[in-house]
Amino acid sequence: MNVTRIDQIAIAVEDLDAAIAFYERAFGLRLSSRERVEDDGVEEAMLQVGDVAIQLLAPTREDSPIARYLERHGPGLHHLGFGVSSVSAALDHLRAEDVRLIDEEPRRGGGGHDIAFVHPRGTGGVLVELIGDEPEE
Amino acid sequence: MNVTRIDQIAIAVEDLDAAIAFYERAFGLRLSSRERVEDDGVEEAMLQVGDVAIQLLAPTREDSPIARYLERHGPGLHHLGFGVSSVSAALDHLRAEDVRLIDEEPRRGGGGHDIAFVHPRGTGGVLVELIGDEPEE
Repeated sequence: MNVTRIDQIAIAVEDLDAAIAFYERAFGLRLSSRERVEDDGVEEAMLQVGDVAIQLLAPTREDSPIARYLERHGPGLHHLGFGVSSVSAALDHLRAEDVRLIDEEPRRGGGGHDIAFVHPRGTGGVLVELIGDEPEE
Repeated sequence: MNVTRIDQIAIAVEDLDAAIAFYERAFGLRLSSRERVEDDGVEEAMLQVGDVAIQLLAPTREDSPIARYLERHGPGLHHLGFGVSSVSAALDHLRAEDVRLIDEEPRRGGGGHDIAFVHPRGTGGVLVELIGDEPEE
């Protein structure tokens, strides 16, 4: 299994509007899209820099994983998104390598992409999201 | 000031050889360069994915900033490297925007690039490294 690209770097934030305004003002980044993913209790803002997105993540409800993350760790770098040609094949490879997973099967993420999360205890402390190259229809 | 590119995503690790082997085996990444930066007490391994580097950082001595980071937080995502055309101009802009800095002036980083760090308290919890587009001669 080969990672084909760095898809995104995700940052947990308390206030999405304030964070977008900060990244625009301080670093000259521009908002490219914004989406609520109700299943995950998260609102995502993408600030595209070349082929890589800075993804700002804010909770939409208090019991969402991102809300619990903010409570424990405060805002900051949250996860790293690797692009792969097949999320399903990547999960098979990681299972064969005994890498601990969060999602055993691909599921639907933001933008309609096939995604799955790899457990930070499997990667040396980094929460990794696998993101399929093409959105699943 | 505009960020021109995502230059790198840096990950703090305890054991550099083991971490390189893991990223090669699990994700198919390849080591592109390796360098000790004695001033910072760090050894860096770069695994290039397209235009972005995954930079693995391990301490070379116990009193280095990366050793202290590992003691406090454990291994994981450490900082985000933004490419800028001029680190000096970027620092001027951030000062004008009242963003808290770690380095008030550019200094020499890995690969001979002009670099400076922005304080995580200035950015909503993300340690940001500014990296000049061309290595300084």
